[in-house]
Amino acid sequence: MHILITGAAGMIGRKLTQRLVGAGALNGEPIDKLTLLDVVAPTAPAGGACAIETVAADLSAPVTATPAIAPRPQVIFHLAGVVSGEAELDFEKGYRVNLDGMRALLEAIRAIGDGYRPRLVYTSSIAVFGAPFPHSIPDDFHLTPRTSYGAAKAIGELLLADYTRRGFCTGVGIRLPSIVVRPGKPNQAASGFFSSIIREPLAGMDASLPVPDSVVHTHASPRAAVGFLIHAAGLSREALGARINLSMPGVCCTVAEQIAALRRIAGERVAARVRPAHDPLIARIVEGWPQRIEARRARELGFKAESSFHEIIRIHIDEDRGGSFVA
Amino acid sequence: MHILITGAAGMIGRKLTQRLVGAGALNGEPIDKLTLLDVVAPTAPAGGACAIETVAADLSAPVTATPAIAPRPQVIFHLAGVVSGEAELDFEKGYRVNLDGMRALLEAIRAIGDGYRPRLVYTSSIAVFGAPFPHSIPDDFHLTPRTSYGAAKAIGELLLADYTRRGFCTGVGIRLPSIVVRPGKPNQAASGFFSSIIREPLAGMDASLPVPDSVVHTHASPRAAVGFLIHAAGLSREALGARINLSMPGVCCTVAEQIAALRRIAGERVAARVRPAHDPLIARIVEGWPQRIEARRARELGFKAESSFHEIIRIHIDEDRGGSFVA
Repeated sequence: MHILITGAAGMIGRKLTQRLVGAGALNGEPIDKLTLLDVVAPTAPAGGACAIETVAADLSAPVTATPAIAPRPQVIFHLAGVVSGEAELDFEKGYRVNLDGMRALLEAIRAIGDGYRPRLVYTSSIAVFGAPFPHSIPDDFHLTPRTSYGAAKAIGELLLADYTRRGFCTGVGIRLPSIVVRPGKPNQAASGFFSSIIREPLAGMDASLPVPDSVVHTHASPRAAVGFLIHAAGLSREALGARINLSMPGVCCTVAEQIAALRRIAGERVAARVRPAHDPLIARIVEGWPQRIEARRARELGFKAESSFHEIIRIHIDEDRGGSFVA
Repeated sequence: MHILITGAAGMIGRKLTQRLVGAGALNGEPIDKLTLLDVVAPTAPAGGACAIETVAADLSAPVTATPAIAPRPQVIFHLAGVVSGEAELDFEKGYRVNLDGMRALLEAIRAIGDGYRPRLVYTSSIAVFGAPFPHSIPDDFHLTPRTSYGAAKAIGELLLADYTRRGFCTGVGIRLPSIVVRPGKPNQAASGFFSSIIREPLAGMDASLPVPDSVVHTHASPRAAVGFLIHAAGLSREALGARINLSMPGVCCTVAEQIAALRRIAGERVAARVRPAHDPLIARIVEGWPQRIEARRARELGFKAESSFHEIIRIHIDEDRGGSFVA
């Protein structure tokens, strides 16, 4: 099996690559070749049995999409994208990468024809939803994004569903909740604090909490996100039916519950490193975000997230901190 | 006031033009100039007080969109589009006109900048919805179109909302129900029979009914559709809020109720010209269509449709048949 991963140099892309290389197989079929594509050439992980090709390319140019698809990968994980904050600051870049990139990929697939019909797993986001919300967002809630990022992701979902219906590919769109704990340095994303209030204290550093600790949100670990992608690649067309864009499950909890879980795992001293520092701008942005995602259909289809925020912190300590933390 | 109408040569475009020319004003402001754009030059109606310019152009080419927008029309009615059946048969043409055309228009508006922020009224369709449906489709029901036409219309809605949120235009998307009775000759649209079972019998001709008379659907007259467009042009930004794409109201009824209304107006002999002629393909397509549209928000915002199918037939007789029919 030949697999193409776009956005392979990103956090989820690297973890997905590692998992696939470690497993050596997908859907019970051995992986012969992995193509890792990103705007900067991804680093090929060592130790795998399959051939690994790394490609530096900007997918949003049709001339780039075509050679990436020409070898007819059977499975494509389309992770490439510009994040929410950047798409809001740079309108043109956001649409070029998030919309034109997706469309160029779909058109390159359609252009091959000749029975080629790859499995295309598309990472969408709960940013396709926009306030006001019901208590819990059902699977059939409308898409009224309030960011250009969310708009482009929602458009990608509609294109994916139509190209799938027309038989050009077999698409699955997965709407990821907030992925925490993100390893690495703090970033400027408005959602960054959800990770940093766990990551920084465990590393012995203070972290600012810009919102009231009553804020509710839905989270899943990077490990769960990789699990969603792999599970999506294996779903039968019959199980999926016509509605191929799915809200993923996650742990719904308040920030206070996040901090309480940190306290239980790492102690009061670590938890005390979270410092309230109200930021009205971030608080206002976060207010517009989805809180509880029902994800009934995804659960029925076998997508699995963590069952507690405790578990999410444990995964971060195991996977990104070698099992320890700074007490 | 300068108004641009795209798709001005179509049925709704012509009726909108007539209405505007007749009124001489929009939102209480006199109309100085009307620009009528279509792929074939529209015919300018006689008798109006305002300047009328007709343009033959394919909007989906950015070079066309820019000159149409350069004179900065304050109100744009974007009606241009390829219909459902054609977009399904010609995938590329459908996306080129329905998606690229909309995007070229939005980009031409954004490119002007400098405080230019026109009112953009976009005709969407209940084809943005796809089966399975609840008993009545609420305003917050998700968009899972089952045609390429519906997908492109839904994408246009998302773009319109985002360009509006970013301040490039003031958009209103109106999802039209099935517009009946369409004047003129029968066309090949799967929905064509909803008009022809009224129009043909009133003209003394037989009409085929390809579906069971228990089929339920939502209808509005061409006059109501023009009313929706004009009402949408006058709504304040405050009343609209962030959710600018609205399902329009209509008359929900069965085909049997349509025929009963025809019988009451024109007599048994006319109603008997409707001949059941089951067509499994059309019946299957129609099964996937929305039945009842709630349109609560649109009604609250003052959009008005007919209150009975009787009224819809009366409008056709008055507006398109000079008040008479063939008994």
